[in-house]
Amino acid sequence: MIPLDRSREAEFRALVDGKAKPPGALGKLEAVAIRLALIADSPAPRADRARLYVFAGDHGLNQAGVSAYPSQVTAAMVATLLAGKANANAFARAVNAEVRIVDAGVAADLDHPDLIDAKIAPGTRNAAEEPALTLAEVEHALARGAGFATTAAADGIELLAIGEMGIGNTASAALILHRLGPAPLADCIGAGAGHDAEGMARKRAVLARATARIQPTQPLEVLAEFGGLEIAMMAGMILGAAEARVPILVDGFIAGAAALAAIRLAPAAADYCFFAHRSAERGHTILLQALSAEPLLDLDLRLGEGTGALLAVPLIRAACGLIGEVASLDDVLQGRI
Amino acid sequence: MIPLDRSREAEFRALVDGKAKPPGALGKLEAVAIRLALIADSPAPRADRARLYVFAGDHGLNQAGVSAYPSQVTAAMVATLLAGKANANAFARAVNAEVRIVDAGVAADLDHPDLIDAKIAPGTRNAAEEPALTLAEVEHALARGAGFATTAAADGIELLAIGEMGIGNTASAALILHRLGPAPLADCIGAGAGHDAEGMARKRAVLARATARIQPTQPLEVLAEFGGLEIAMMAGMILGAAEARVPILVDGFIAGAAALAAIRLAPAAADYCFFAHRSAERGHTILLQALSAEPLLDLDLRLGEGTGALLAVPLIRAACGLIGEVASLDDVLQGRI
Repeated sequence: MIPLDRSREAEFRALVDGKAKPPGALGKLEAVAIRLALIADSPAPRADRARLYVFAGDHGLNQAGVSAYPSQVTAAMVATLLAGKANANAFARAVNAEVRIVDAGVAADLDHPDLIDAKIAPGTRNAAEEPALTLAEVEHALARGAGFATTAAADGIELLAIGEMGIGNTASAALILHRLGPAPLADCIGAGAGHDAEGMARKRAVLARATARIQPTQPLEVLAEFGGLEIAMMAGMILGAAEARVPILVDGFIAGAAALAAIRLAPAAADYCFFAHRSAERGHTILLQALSAEPLLDLDLRLGEGTGALLAVPLIRAACGLIGEVASLDDVLQGRI
Repeated sequence: MIPLDRSREAEFRALVDGKAKPPGALGKLEAVAIRLALIADSPAPRADRARLYVFAGDHGLNQAGVSAYPSQVTAAMVATLLAGKANANAFARAVNAEVRIVDAGVAADLDHPDLIDAKIAPGTRNAAEEPALTLAEVEHALARGAGFATTAAADGIELLAIGEMGIGNTASAALILHRLGPAPLADCIGAGAGHDAEGMARKRAVLARATARIQPTQPLEVLAEFGGLEIAMMAGMILGAAEARVPILVDGFIAGAAALAAIRLAPAAADYCFFAHRSAERGHTILLQALSAEPLLDLDLRLGEGTGALLAVPLIRAACGLIGEVASLDDVLQGRI
C-alpha cells in the first residue's frame, strides 16, 4: 500500500485558507477537504458517486448468549435491507448513495437477486470455546472485501462507506478492541442492541471466557480467534479502498473495530478512512482514541447497517465543494466573481 | 400562531420505537422524526424540497469598528452567492437544496436578476449611538421574512433553512443575546469573522456603549435598538414558517439570535425550529441553552451563509425516512417484508 502522498498538503491548505471565508471558519470540514484533495491528488475532489456496502455475518458467540436477539434476526434484517425497508436504505435515499448487501457469513441460506454472495462460512464458531475462524477464512474474507473496493473503484465510485449487520457482533468488536486497542476488556463491552443487567453480566462472562482461552496480539490472529466474517470483510474493504485511493467512511463501533484491525495491519490505510460518527455504544470512544480519530457526527446512534456512515456522506461532498468549487476571497474582494 | 398539536405524539413515538432497530438506536434523530411527523400531522413527513434563504444586511455598528472586515464585503459576498461561488452554494449543491438570496438591507445598490430585493434600508444606523432601526422598520422586516415563508410553502417547499451575510452582525447578535437570553454581555461577544486582541477590545467597548445607551427588554425593541435587518427578516421567516407549519433549520449564532427574538415574541415558534449546529462563535452555546435547544451538528463552523443549516438538511431527510419508510421490527421478525 502506498502511503498518502502529502507533498501537496501545503498547496491544498493554502487553497482552503484562501477561500471566500475567514480562515478556519469551516472548522472540521477544512481538514477533511485537504485530505480528500490529497487522496484524489487533485484540488477538486468529488464524492458524487457514493456507495455503502453492508456486510452481514453471524457469530458463534451468540450461542453463548452475548446478544438479546437470536441469530435469525441477521437473516431477517438482510431480507429487510434487500427489500429497501431498513434504516440504511431510507438513509441512502436521503443522501443519494448506492447500497450493496453482502453475505459475508450469515448462518442461513439466503437467496435474492441483489444479494452479493461472499459467504465464507455459515457464521463463525463460538469464540468462547474455540477460534471463531481459521486464518485461511480470515484471509479469504479480507481478500473478498478488498476485491469489492477494487470493483467499486472500477465502477467509478468516488466515496465508499461500510456498515454491517450481525447479531452478536458488538461482542466480537469488543474483543478486537480489547486486544488491538489495547484497552481493558470491561471498557470495551457495551449493551449492543440492548441488554438488561443480567444480559450484560452474561455478555461479560462469555467474553472473559474468550480472553481466558487465548490472548492473540497480531491483527490476523485476533480476527481469527474472535471473528467475525463481516468484520474481516470490512477490514479488507478498507485495505482495498486505500490501495485504490478511494476515501472510505467508517460507520460505528463494529466497522470501527474492522478499521482498527485494518490499520494495525497497514497503518497507511488510516489516511483513507473518515470516521463518520461517535456511536453511543460503549467502547467506541476508546476505539476512536486508539486510532487518534475524530468523528464527524455525534448523534447518539448505535444501530449499525452503515446508517451513521451514510449521514456523513453529505459532509464529505460539502468538503469537496469547499475546496473544489468556492471562489477565493481575493477574487471576491477584487470583484473578479 | 397555532402551537404544535401534540395529540399524536404517543402514536408517532410508538411508530418510531417499533421500527426495525433497537428502541432508541437512532439517537437524536428519533425525536427529530417524531417532531417532523407532528409538524406535518402525518406519519410520513417529507423534506425532499428544501430551500435556504440567505438574508444580507449591513450594520451601522461596523462604522465603530466591530468587525475586521469593511461593510463592502457584504455586497461582495452577496455577488459571490448570486454567482453560485460561495460556500453556501457549494453546500447547497452537495445536499440538493435550493438557495435564495435576499437583500434585507445591504449598504450598496445591488442589481442581479436572481437577487430578491427586500431592502428596508441601506444598512442600520450605528447602535452604539442611536437606535439601529425604527420599530416600523423592524415590523416591515418581520413581515417580509414571514412573507417569504408563506411563498415557499406555496411553492411546495417542505423544509426551510435560514442563514445570513452581514459584516458586523455578530455584534448585533451578541447584543440581542445579552438582552433576550439574557446573558452577561462579555459572554455574548466572540471573535466573529476574526479579531486580534485589539479588535476584540474595540468590539467590547463599542457594545458596552450600546448597552450603556439603552437596555431594551421587549423583542421588538431589542431588534430596533440593536438591529439588524437580516436578523429581523430571519425572525420573521421563523414566525412565518411556524404559521405555515413548515420546519425550519436555523444556522448558527446570528440566525440563532433571530430565533431567540422570534421565540421570545411567539414561544410556540420553537416547535418548528431545528437548530442545525453548534457554532464555534462564543455565545452560541449560551444562546442554545437559553432556548433549551440541542443542535444536530458540532463541526466548529463559524461562517454563516446558512452553511451549517445546509449540512443538517440530509439529517432531516433521514429522520423523515426513518419514520416514513422503514419497516416495523414486528414485520421483519414475522417475515412480512
